[in-house]
Amino acid sequence: MDSHIPSPPTRRLSTGERENAIDRTIPLFPPAVEIDEHNYFDNNDPPEYLESMISGAHEFVKFHKYNRVVLVTSGGTTVPLENQTVRFIDNFSAGTRGATSAEYFLENGYAVIFLHRQFSLLPYSRHYSHSTNCFLDFMEEKNGKVVVDPKYQEEMLSVLRKYQTAKEKNLLLLLPFTTINQYLHTLRALSVTLQPLKSRALFYLAAAVSDFFVPLHRIPEHKIQSKAGGNKLLMSLDPVPKFLHRLVEKWAPGAMIISFKLETDSSILLSKSRQALERYSHQLVIGNLLQTRKKEVVFVEPDAPAHWIRLTPAQEAAGIDIESLIIPAIVKRHTVWIKESGNSA
Amino acid sequence: MDSHIPSPPTRRLSTGERENAIDRTIPLFPPAVEIDEHNYFDNNDPPEYLESMISGAHEFVKFHKYNRVVLVTSGGTTVPLENQTVRFIDNFSAGTRGATSAEYFLENGYAVIFLHRQFSLLPYSRHYSHSTNCFLDFMEEKNGKVVVDPKYQEEMLSVLRKYQTAKEKNLLLLLPFTTINQYLHTLRALSVTLQPLKSRALFYLAAAVSDFFVPLHRIPEHKIQSKAGGNKLLMSLDPVPKFLHRLVEKWAPGAMIISFKLETDSSILLSKSRQALERYSHQLVIGNLLQTRKKEVVFVEPDAPAHWIRLTPAQEAAGIDIESLIIPAIVKRHTVWIKESGNSA
Repeated sequence: MDSHIPSPPTRRLSTGERENAIDRTIPLFPPAVEIDEHNYFDNNDPPEYLESMISGAHEFVKFHKYNRVVLVTSGGTTVPLENQTVRFIDNFSAGTRGATSAEYFLENGYAVIFLHRQFSLLPYSRHYSHSTNCFLDFMEEKNGKVVVDPKYQEEMLSVLRKYQTAKEKNLLLLLPFTTINQYLHTLRALSVTLQPLKSRALFYLAAAVSDFFVPLHRIPEHKIQSKAGGNKLLMSLDPVPKFLHRLVEKWAPGAMIISFKLETDSSILLSKSRQALERYSHQLVIGNLLQTRKKEVVFVEPDAPAHWIRLTPAQEAAGIDIESLIIPAIVKRHTVWIKESGNSA
Repeated sequence: MDSHIPSPPTRRLSTGERENAIDRTIPLFPPAVEIDEHNYFDNNDPPEYLESMISGAHEFVKFHKYNRVVLVTSGGTTVPLENQTVRFIDNFSAGTRGATSAEYFLENGYAVIFLHRQFSLLPYSRHYSHSTNCFLDFMEEKNGKVVVDPKYQEEMLSVLRKYQTAKEKNLLLLLPFTTINQYLHTLRALSVTLQPLKSRALFYLAAAVSDFFVPLHRIPEHKIQSKAGGNKLLMSLDPVPKFLHRLVEKWAPGAMIISFKLETDSSILLSKSRQALERYSHQLVIGNLLQTRKKEVVFVEPDAPAHWIRLTPAQEAAGIDIESLIIPAIVKRHTVWIKESGNSA
């Protein structure tokens, strides 16, 4: 029996059969999903830095043990196609949703763990980092010194103050990832770290997680060679195990969990969001379309009709972030969640 | 006859046959490689912005018609797996080699067209943009103003001055790309734009170009759907036509052309570099290993032994860019090239 392949539930053995059974380590009624996920962590090693990263997160959670803490995930995960990664499959995401949302969570009194794709947008610096020529275009020389161009002073001061306040009050913990494997191991470890907060922990899973990956044993050691005039490249990718169920049931019992559903086809957005909610039994799916994600999203929740949040044309013209509407709507729901869980103290 | 498939050379028709031939537009003796490349451009539309981008480049080249101009390509190209791109295959490259090299070309008196992957590193701002928290960590508030932290003043002033000199003297043209298709169309159009400079044009092709792509007609319109507990994803990619030959022969006759060969396996680096040089008949292949690319590269040239350029341990410790050694070695070769081409005026 290949333990890597999830088995269908087997019938319970009779007493006689049981005595004849040779391998007693084979579990009875193994739920397919659990084995799948266990196998993932057994077969894909954690990143080397994980332990020290998590010990930092542990300190952060201890510091905020009476506060609300949100884990915001942001940016796309990569799937290496080679061991010494030259080529990889990436999921498009600049990290705008996550970085912007983190700022509004901070404004609403949350401490934020920002688990982000390295070099994707970060809270506060996002206002400058992906501009045409990051940074230097905002500066000028005056009396032999580099100074900020006066026309950017006012806005930059406001951004800098918020950033420094978050740093001084230890409200923002930045943790990076690149690959799907780093992401999954870190998410699992952070979930356990957040358990003491019970319902005050909030998961806001905005990262664009790969659906398919190449298992470790199939990744070639060296760069895939192409031939001149050459052959096609055939790739076979396995589905990434669905971890949300495990997160809801085991890793973060008591926490409020929000996932995102990004689609490009508007006709399936609501059904896909509802499906995800039913499959994982969590509290909220935020559906959005790639084309309109900066001006409208839909909240899909248990026992409630779909609730759209939209910028008005005036808000859109004024450059209002839709996250300034999304986050307060979440905070309201989180307050109810904490109250109903009865462990707000 | 399917014109998308490169045909083998056909024999010349006899006079009688010629009169009976119906389709006189079918070319005789079509070289397979040419058709391949033609087909690429016929079947994959140019980006909409191309015309206006090239008209800017045309002005830039006119402005520098008596100077040396280098086209530096930098960063990795992407291969979209969906039409409304959520997922794509990427080639790893932060753009360090290209951005750093561009600075040293500027210091050596060249005008630089910097064709780069959007959001990859740029000349000068590279010193700050991929730091942990781009930008804001270098700033502080003083008397209600944002100012540069004194400990970064000196270095930043030196970088800012070089950047502003390049801007004021119109020495640096930044042109972005994301997909392999955008890259190939832009490279072809720029090559033609650079033709009037003859041997004073230099191509420094440091971009990490995808070897495989999904042809336009096979790209699905919407996001690939994954199924719970799901199926494998099978992908079939075609080899990207080899354009370097065409660049050398047709697009940029007279220019000096340098390509890069990046490998992870040291045992094949030299043979792969030599092979590329012989296949495309250009002037220089710079070989480098992913693991050691910041401290050693090898020049592979026609009729000469491989020439290694290495940082000494002392240079490495002092943080010297290896590009500060590479670029002067290239400039020397370019001077010889111009002299031998006899059109330096």
